[in-house]
Amino acid sequence: MRAVVVETPGDVDALTIGQIDTPVPGQGEVLVRTVASGVNRADVLQRQGHYPPPRGVTDTIGLEASGVVAGVGDGVTRWKEGDEVVALLAGGGYAEYFVVPEGQAIAPPPGVDLVSAAGVLEVAATVLSNTRVGFLKAGDVFLVHGGAGGIGTFAIQYAKALGATVAATAGSPEKLQHCLDFGADYAFDYHEDWVAAVKDATGGADMILDIIGAKYLESNVKALKKGGRLVVIGLQGGVKGTLNLGLLLNKAATVTATSLRFRPDKEKASICQAVEQEVWPMLGDGRIRLAPETRIPFEEVRRAHEQLVGGGNVGKIVLVH
Amino acid sequence: MRAVVVETPGDVDALTIGQIDTPVPGQGEVLVRTVASGVNRADVLQRQGHYPPPRGVTDTIGLEASGVVAGVGDGVTRWKEGDEVVALLAGGGYAEYFVVPEGQAIAPPPGVDLVSAAGVLEVAATVLSNTRVGFLKAGDVFLVHGGAGGIGTFAIQYAKALGATVAATAGSPEKLQHCLDFGADYAFDYHEDWVAAVKDATGGADMILDIIGAKYLESNVKALKKGGRLVVIGLQGGVKGTLNLGLLLNKAATVTATSLRFRPDKEKASICQAVEQEVWPMLGDGRIRLAPETRIPFEEVRRAHEQLVGGGNVGKIVLVH
Repeated sequence: MRAVVVETPGDVDALTIGQIDTPVPGQGEVLVRTVASGVNRADVLQRQGHYPPPRGVTDTIGLEASGVVAGVGDGVTRWKEGDEVVALLAGGGYAEYFVVPEGQAIAPPPGVDLVSAAGVLEVAATVLSNTRVGFLKAGDVFLVHGGAGGIGTFAIQYAKALGATVAATAGSPEKLQHCLDFGADYAFDYHEDWVAAVKDATGGADMILDIIGAKYLESNVKALKKGGRLVVIGLQGGVKGTLNLGLLLNKAATVTATSLRFRPDKEKASICQAVEQEVWPMLGDGRIRLAPETRIPFEEVRRAHEQLVGGGNVGKIVLVH
Repeated sequence: MRAVVVETPGDVDALTIGQIDTPVPGQGEVLVRTVASGVNRADVLQRQGHYPPPRGVTDTIGLEASGVVAGVGDGVTRWKEGDEVVALLAGGGYAEYFVVPEGQAIAPPPGVDLVSAAGVLEVAATVLSNTRVGFLKAGDVFLVHGGAGGIGTFAIQYAKALGATVAATAGSPEKLQHCLDFGADYAFDYHEDWVAAVKDATGGADMILDIIGAKYLESNVKALKKGGRLVVIGLQGGVKGTLNLGLLLNKAATVTATSLRFRPDKEKASICQAVEQEVWPMLGDGRIRLAPETRIPFEEVRRAHEQLVGGGNVGKIVLVH
C-alpha cells in the first residue's frame, strides 16, 4: 500500500510517498481503508525525529484518520466491513490503510462528512480528557492559550458547554475576535499583561489548558486562583521552566502535564467512548462548531506540513486520499 | 489569660509570656482550657515573621492543642463543658485558653493521654489530607522525605496501613533504622543517589510526600513513575525550583503543593472528622505508634523552639500548661 515514508528525519523533504506492507489486523483490531488523515503539530515533531512513536507502534506518521472498515481481527464485536469510522491512533494514519484497536474507532460525528471528520477526534479527545485531568466543572473559570488554534477553538466551546466561564489568549485582533466568535467570555492579547487581565476579569483561573510549557509556567501559576489546576499538554515554549512552589502552596494549586499518545490503549478507548457519547451530540446540536478545515491531497503532504508550520494557518488540515 | 506574645518577630527572645484577653466563643465555636500545646516548625516561621496567620485569625502562635471544654457558643451541638478534646487551629494554641470551630475539635485518640495528644492532630491531618490530595491507594509505591521526622514517622505507618509499599529518605544510619523500625520497606540516605535507589528498588514512586520543595523538585519528578503525583507540603529547601515539563508530560505526572493552615474551616472540619474516624482506630490497635514526645513547661517556650530548630530533635515537642 502507499504510505508516507520518512527515511531520515528532517525538514519537509524528508516526507516521501512510498510502498509498505498493508498491515494485518490482530486480535481486537480493525483494518481501515483511509479516506482522510488529520495533520497535527506532533506529526511535524515526529518527522523531525523529536517525537518517536511508543514502543511496538508503526513508525508511519499520523495520529488520527477516517475511513471505511476493510477487515476485522479476531474478537472484534462492534465493527464490520463497510462501516465508517474515525480513529485515534498512536501512529500510522498517513497511509492507504491503518489498523487500530476497535475501542479507538468510533462513529463519525453526526452531520460531519468523513473527510472533515478525520480532523476532529484528536482534538476532541485531547480537550475532553484534559478537562477531566483538570477537574473542570460548571461555574469554573477556564483559561486556554492559543484560543484561535485547533485545540483552543474546540476547548472554548467545550468548556462553555460544560458551564464554565471561558477566557482565551491569542496574538492578533483577528484571532481574539475568533475566540469571542466561538463563545469565549474574554479574549486577551498575549503580548500584553494577560495575567493581570485574567485576574481582573475573573479573579483567576480554576483551570488552565496550556500548550506553551516552560515559557508560561510562572505566569500560569500566577493566573491560577486557590485550588487551581494547570494542565500542560504542549511545550511550544520550552521544556524546563521555573516553578514557584511557595506560590503554588499558598494556592493549594496543581501542575499536571499529560499527552494522549502515550496513554495505554484501554484509557484511549475509554476516552474515545466518552467523546462519542458526550462530544458528538454537542457537534450534532451546534453547541460545538468546527472551524473550516483545509483539504490537501495526500500526495502533497509536504505542502500540508509547510502550511501548518507557516504560522498563518487557521483551523485543521486534512490529507485527502 | 496567659499567652505567648511576640512583640517584634525575631529569634527565640521574641517569645515572651504575657497577658491577653481570654477569647469568647462565637457562633459554632467552643472555648477550651489548654492542657498542652503542640509545637510545629511553622510556629518558628511565624515567630520570625515569615508565616503570618490567615486574615481574621488571632496572631497568637499555635496550630494545635489539647484541653478541656470551658464554654460553648451558640449552635454548638457536639461539645459541652468538661469534654476533653484535641483541636486543629489556624492560630492561638500557645495560650491558657483558645477558641475553635466545633468541627475542628475532636476526641483525643484512644489510649493517648491529653498531653501527648496535643502533638498528634496536626501531623495526622497533614498526612491524611495530603495522601488524599495524592490519591494514594493500596499497592502504590509511596516515598516520603524526612522519614524520621514527625510527619515522616507518621506517614510511613499510615501509608503502610493503607497497603502501600513505602520508601523513606533520611540522613543518618540511626534515622534510616528509625524509618525501618516504623515499617518502611526501604530507607535511603539522602546524601547518596536516592532517585536511582528508589527506581531500582520499586520502579519509581506513585506518590511522593515532600517537605523540601525547590531543592528536590527535579529529583522528585525523576523518581516518579507514570501517572505519579508529587505533593509538596514544605519548603525547607527553597521556594523556586526547576520543573522539567517534558519529563512530567512523558510521565503524565502531577505536582501539587498544599498547606493545611490556609484551607477553609469547612475543609479542616471534614479532615478532622476523617482523622477521628480513620486514623484514631489505627492508633488504638497499634497500626500507628507515636514516637515519644518531649514535654516542656509552657513557661519555657523559648527552650522548646531552640530544641526544635537545633536539629538533633527527634519526635514531637509539646508545651505543658
